[in-house]
Amino acid sequence: MPIKALKYPFAPFGREEYARRVERIRRAMAAARLDVLLITTETNFRYVSGLSNQGWVSPTRPMFLVLPLERDPIAVIPTGSSVVMRQYSWIEDVRTWPAPRPADDGVSLVADALRSAVGARGTIGAEFGPETQLRMPTNDFLRLRSDLLPTVMSDASRLLQQVRMVKSPAEVERIRTIAQLVSRAFEELPNVMQLGDSERDVCLRLQLDVLQRGADRFPYMISASGPEGYETINTDPSDRQLAKGDVLIIDTGCTIDGYFCDFDRNFAFGPPAASVKNAHARAYDATEAGFLASRAGARVCDVWEAMAAALGREAISGSGVGRMGHGLGLNLTEPPSIHPEDTTVIEPGMVLTLEPGIGFTARDGSPRVMVHEENIVIGPNGAELLSRRAPRELPVIEI
Amino acid sequence: MPIKALKYPFAPFGREEYARRVERIRRAMAAARLDVLLITTETNFRYVSGLSNQGWVSPTRPMFLVLPLERDPIAVIPTGSSVVMRQYSWIEDVRTWPAPRPADDGVSLVADALRSAVGARGTIGAEFGPETQLRMPTNDFLRLRSDLLPTVMSDASRLLQQVRMVKSPAEVERIRTIAQLVSRAFEELPNVMQLGDSERDVCLRLQLDVLQRGADRFPYMISASGPEGYETINTDPSDRQLAKGDVLIIDTGCTIDGYFCDFDRNFAFGPPAASVKNAHARAYDATEAGFLASRAGARVCDVWEAMAAALGREAISGSGVGRMGHGLGLNLTEPPSIHPEDTTVIEPGMVLTLEPGIGFTARDGSPRVMVHEENIVIGPNGAELLSRRAPRELPVIEI
Repeated sequence: MPIKALKYPFAPFGREEYARRVERIRRAMAAARLDVLLITTETNFRYVSGLSNQGWVSPTRPMFLVLPLERDPIAVIPTGSSVVMRQYSWIEDVRTWPAPRPADDGVSLVADALRSAVGARGTIGAEFGPETQLRMPTNDFLRLRSDLLPTVMSDASRLLQQVRMVKSPAEVERIRTIAQLVSRAFEELPNVMQLGDSERDVCLRLQLDVLQRGADRFPYMISASGPEGYETINTDPSDRQLAKGDVLIIDTGCTIDGYFCDFDRNFAFGPPAASVKNAHARAYDATEAGFLASRAGARVCDVWEAMAAALGREAISGSGVGRMGHGLGLNLTEPPSIHPEDTTVIEPGMVLTLEPGIGFTARDGSPRVMVHEENIVIGPNGAELLSRRAPRELPVIEI
Repeated sequence: MPIKALKYPFAPFGREEYARRVERIRRAMAAARLDVLLITTETNFRYVSGLSNQGWVSPTRPMFLVLPLERDPIAVIPTGSSVVMRQYSWIEDVRTWPAPRPADDGVSLVADALRSAVGARGTIGAEFGPETQLRMPTNDFLRLRSDLLPTVMSDASRLLQQVRMVKSPAEVERIRTIAQLVSRAFEELPNVMQLGDSERDVCLRLQLDVLQRGADRFPYMISASGPEGYETINTDPSDRQLAKGDVLIIDTGCTIDGYFCDFDRNFAFGPPAASVKNAHARAYDATEAGFLASRAGARVCDVWEAMAAALGREAISGSGVGRMGHGLGLNLTEPPSIHPEDTTVIEPGMVLTLEPGIGFTARDGSPRVMVHEENIVIGPNGAELLSRRAPRELPVIEI
């Protein structure tokens, strides 16, 4: 019997969802005195228009969305995407060009659309700020900016990030669904791994299981292992074979309907060293502390402080991790950062990862880190888990 | 017996591979009178440094590579990536900052590195041109450019694209491996699909098979189906169930060791209409014509002309496809474009897709397109297939 895909669990976002998104963005635009937004990035484009388009995988073709404060939005897209735009987006004013056309890859169409919205001396908001890259050729951007003078272009990425930070119930459901699904696959993993498996063996099994459970994509899967743990987690799964005394970590970013989960799990092969058990328990306890501190009205730096207090400062400095969690949604990582300098006030509907890392030293003197991560959503009375909580005791694969 | 991953089939690229890449880039830099390159994009960074890093999935952290004409290259990267950089890259001068740090996300380190290479009045080459987006916040770029005045920044993306167009034998082997592996999975697919399966069922089976055959990632999988075919191919696989008289297309972009294959296959459910059979045969014949025209010394526009002649102009204009193939490598799509206005001269080592599309009309009058695609490499005496050739007769699923 061949494998069947699970039925897509969600109806498409309704017209009202997009209306609410646009209304929130426009309120922020009015407050920032912006006449129009120029959107070029995949996730902002999708957030406003509803279009899922795998064309973003290739850097060849730009896509533009022009969102005026008052008039109807205009999509400027490659001809090849016009049919899907008509089918899957509520946006009616769609203008196309046969991309790639290096001499004018949509730029003159975008300039016209912006001009009609901004007038002679208005302000255009564009994706200029941190954690964002303008997704159009820089020469085209410089030409566009100069063609539109004396119009001003200023940053609107922060504005869009702030609107997107607070998820709708329908968005939270998508993140919860993917986080639950990946949690179950992680819980099953100890039953299908053993000594001698490679990191790639285990990661492949996880990936196959997650896809069969209904994930759309698995864009992010890093893994590390070694005696008493690992020095860094930013590595592709390798052919390294798991041995007695190892700790294995797998960190995942999987999507459903474009929304990411992002969390990791650790496993010990045989009874772990005391240092390892201790590090896992402290990372677990720091996550608990972060969870309790994550409530509406607190700041994300307060969450950092709560986790830091549970870990101890010395342990943090050895972890090499610049923050202890972040926002999550259509991007694997989004603002805010759970960082001592980020004073973002937490609101209901925010989805965050709690990701404490603790540095320690293996018996042979080599540097080690233990990273732990869960995904949460902020409710009216505190945080709620979206992933299924990892056990406090590091799971041990019997050998 | 749990599934095992296939052993990674490739040794890492050797130091000599990177030395040759850098030498070719520097020759082009000297010809273009550039003193230093600033590299910010994932695939250019990987091409030069050798570093595979999934951190690129998230837009949060930029990574920079500064490649002077004469001195040693400098990597400016987030602290969290320094261990992998040391392990997996030949680059020794690695400078780090604790990203994210919005006030200075690597910019002052990059400015210092560029200044030391460019002197007071030199020229910096950066990724400014078509099919490229600078992967750093635009405000940071504008600040950097202004801080470095009177130094000039000019486009170097074309230069890097031209170097990367011609693949080394080791690169070709990677693309051949992934293309062969995906070809075999496509050939197996008719045995595991039937009427009533959804597009998502079939795509899931293909994806699971491709991953078990050894692909690293499956970032791109679009699918479309309908009576007598489809109007566009740029759609995510849906829950639509396959019925008698349908044509299904699946287009894939899968990677091994970072290198993409990119081709599609069509399947008919039950005996296809004459219009469908005819469209498939003409797309097949156009691919043959393109294959024969793809030889060193010809131009890619000549390949387009050969395919266009086989298809007939009228059929092309109905296809909605702006070009009939493109380069392929670390990106799903790379220059050149097989397009009437691209005069790039074909060289041995170039890897291309041939992707003719033909428009036609279904019996009920609705617009249809038939797209066909193969991957090839240019040898000294003509082209060679990297994918396994699709059959000229459209494969029919017996019902």
